[in-house]
Amino acid sequence: MSKKSNSGYKGAALSVLKNFDVNVWGDVRITTSDGEFSGIILPRSEIADDRHVVLKLTTGYNIGLEVGTIEEIEEHGSKEAHYKIPEKEFPFDPVKPNVVLLGTGGTIASRLDYRSGAVIPAFSPGELYGAVPELADICNLKTDKLYGVFSENITPEHWSGTAEAIKREVDNGADGIVIGHGTDTMHYTAAALSFMVKSTPVPIVMVGSQRSSDRPSSDAALNLINATWTAAYSDIAEVMVCMFGPTSDEYALLHRGTRVRKMHSSYRSTFRTIGDTPIARVSGGEINLIKKDYRRRNPETPLELDTVFDDRVSIVYYYPNMQPDIIDSLVDNGYKGIVIAGTGLGHVNKPLYPSLKRACDSGVHIFMTVETLWGYVQMYVYDTGRDIMELGVVPGANMLPEVAYVKLGWVLGHTHDREKVAEMMLTPYAGEITERETIDGYLIMQGGLPEMEKFLKNIHF
Amino acid sequence: MSKKSNSGYKGAALSVLKNFDVNVWGDVRITTSDGEFSGIILPRSEIADDRHVVLKLTTGYNIGLEVGTIEEIEEHGSKEAHYKIPEKEFPFDPVKPNVVLLGTGGTIASRLDYRSGAVIPAFSPGELYGAVPELADICNLKTDKLYGVFSENITPEHWSGTAEAIKREVDNGADGIVIGHGTDTMHYTAAALSFMVKSTPVPIVMVGSQRSSDRPSSDAALNLINATWTAAYSDIAEVMVCMFGPTSDEYALLHRGTRVRKMHSSYRSTFRTIGDTPIARVSGGEINLIKKDYRRRNPETPLELDTVFDDRVSIVYYYPNMQPDIIDSLVDNGYKGIVIAGTGLGHVNKPLYPSLKRACDSGVHIFMTVETLWGYVQMYVYDTGRDIMELGVVPGANMLPEVAYVKLGWVLGHTHDREKVAEMMLTPYAGEITERETIDGYLIMQGGLPEMEKFLKNIHF
Repeated sequence: MSKKSNSGYKGAALSVLKNFDVNVWGDVRITTSDGEFSGIILPRSEIADDRHVVLKLTTGYNIGLEVGTIEEIEEHGSKEAHYKIPEKEFPFDPVKPNVVLLGTGGTIASRLDYRSGAVIPAFSPGELYGAVPELADICNLKTDKLYGVFSENITPEHWSGTAEAIKREVDNGADGIVIGHGTDTMHYTAAALSFMVKSTPVPIVMVGSQRSSDRPSSDAALNLINATWTAAYSDIAEVMVCMFGPTSDEYALLHRGTRVRKMHSSYRSTFRTIGDTPIARVSGGEINLIKKDYRRRNPETPLELDTVFDDRVSIVYYYPNMQPDIIDSLVDNGYKGIVIAGTGLGHVNKPLYPSLKRACDSGVHIFMTVETLWGYVQMYVYDTGRDIMELGVVPGANMLPEVAYVKLGWVLGHTHDREKVAEMMLTPYAGEITERETIDGYLIMQGGLPEMEKFLKNIHF
Repeated sequence: MSKKSNSGYKGAALSVLKNFDVNVWGDVRITTSDGEFSGIILPRSEIADDRHVVLKLTTGYNIGLEVGTIEEIEEHGSKEAHYKIPEKEFPFDPVKPNVVLLGTGGTIASRLDYRSGAVIPAFSPGELYGAVPELADICNLKTDKLYGVFSENITPEHWSGTAEAIKREVDNGADGIVIGHGTDTMHYTAAALSFMVKSTPVPIVMVGSQRSSDRPSSDAALNLINATWTAAYSDIAEVMVCMFGPTSDEYALLHRGTRVRKMHSSYRSTFRTIGDTPIARVSGGEINLIKKDYRRRNPETPLELDTVFDDRVSIVYYYPNMQPDIIDSLVDNGYKGIVIAGTGLGHVNKPLYPSLKRACDSGVHIFMTVETLWGYVQMYVYDTGRDIMELGVVPGANMLPEVAYVKLGWVLGHTHDREKVAEMMLTPYAGEITERETIDGYLIMQGGLPEMEKFLKNIHF
């Protein structure tokens, strides 16, 4: 974010800033019909409305001022002041559980550096205590910044490195692990850790934020509180994702690492369990279980690692008229595993058949998943499905395409034996394949007539 | 389906068939504690329970017999009888609207041929009248079988051929068009027809079935009735998909052709409007509008076709650790358009940047969409997004990846001029880009606390 832009402002709000010749990051006093407010003009998100100027008050709180109420904006004389999260030593309480926060990148908590306009991640226990003091009521916190990458740049090396850090901290006595991670690929990492950490005595909770903590609507602090609470006190010793349940901040959901997917590019409620219900909800220091089948916290359980990975794997997302060169190129380029996201129950078009056969014959392992995301691959129903299986393509049950991709790399790290690969792929190691998908796990507006009637009743033209 | 298998039967139900040495398609008399039943043993779906044997009675009705009640199964002596839908001439009523049903493949209504065990599609008006007599209460029906392909094998030639058939029938006076289509790729075809039929005076309604009409739970007849009703009487002159709303048969939903996606591999409620609400619901001859912005039926509107298509387009579904060869191979193989389904707000990893730049520099048109499916691409929020735009990649707003793929082929049929392609891609021609996504368009279990409380209350361990 550059200092002199008015990033995010548009329409009426942008006009007001221009009228008074002030910019984002300006240290200002704004006179409104509701009173005077002093603070720093914050940038806004691209999707924000054009009716508010958002100010970071000197108290640390953010406030949105409706443009119609703004009478005057004066820039303060001094530009030297800068906003800083107060930093205090994180208190230690021998009675509280010990939680370790591992950082991989992505903004969890942050502070603004007024001089540069940069968002500086708060990460040390002291900084976090200053930013989110509630954490000290929950646990003793230790932090370790493993990486600092945007999550689209995460690789299998980051996955195995994070798994190793988890083992180190758990072996050192951590009662729970929180992993800060960018949301873009958090579900891929959650799946990878689910396979690489074969068993754990304590909860492993991934968390991130959809809106960084310099924004009024940030989910960063609440996600961190809920994730830390889960790591410290929950009975669920699995790899989970902890993020907003609804779009509002009423509660967080705990999603199993192998059944979760990012489903909205900007909503804070973006992570959803697919084809199942979440494991639990977390809210205000309370954990309400939704599922009963999960692995229990048990200090006797050894943390077992298995971090092998063969990264010569790919996802092919089928579309009508796909040509065989898509498959041929992967084979020619040395890929050893392909996850197809097919249509319907697991189909691709006939022109691909010879290429798929050639790929399978040459030792490439191909698994079918469904691009519908919900539901099972069922290749026995139609002749076409049976034909595709004849070529050597193996149905992947109800594994999500992304999870099958991660798992195939992990399996190929162990073996390239055809039967053994298929056997491992179809064995559920971490809940990635379920015997059935509950109806509660499907989409909105399918709950039947009463819900639909209610919905229709609320529409006013 | 082969004659001698017991397809779909398992567990207790399969044991009963084996005990009495009978098979699927067998013409039998079953003695149960509730009485005697004569008919043909029907195959079951892969996901059916193992507690029932399903019989097609001589009346034409299907019945599920609980295995615990079955005392004896005797095979009839004669194998000559075969089941046939009664065929009658479809009545003509000059007062009723004229609807044309175009067939592309996929099973809408079907009859069983006992001798071969094959499912034979019912398609002539007379056959359909025999299978779904309600159709004659709605309209005068004409049918035309354009193709007979499983929908995964549909190509752009089928799209343009169907568009041309629509024009022919509308110009000949049809008051509405119904298109029977396999469900696998129905949403791709719906998008293609939305662009290729630029304007229409009458409704164009795509329909299919998730379970063919030889199965007890078939949605075929009801979908056909609802789609025909919509074509005959609705005010909505757009390309729509008409399929089950909830998993039960309470109502159908009408989805805009460019905002709909198949979201479950086996549910009958598989088609969902993404990021918006459906246009309307249809039930029992009643159409309840949900949206008010749609194109109205108007006999004065000319049906305008624009069926060009350049099929050198592809979808790249981003995953962590994607290597540049994925992009390079597409360019080397002559693709001219690439739709990326990126993570988060529209991201890919840094190792792809040089390949993306090379692709754009060499005249390949690359558009970014989001693999979250819900939400907008927003590449101005992070530096990485801006970097990717610098390479020449254009953000695709909230177009679904599948819709962007179809649209890009259609646009490249018109022009390869860089600016003109971008301009056309970002112009909404058929509702494929919306100004905002309504909260009602997102997923289940995010309606806030009251719904969640209700949900939790219904869980019993």
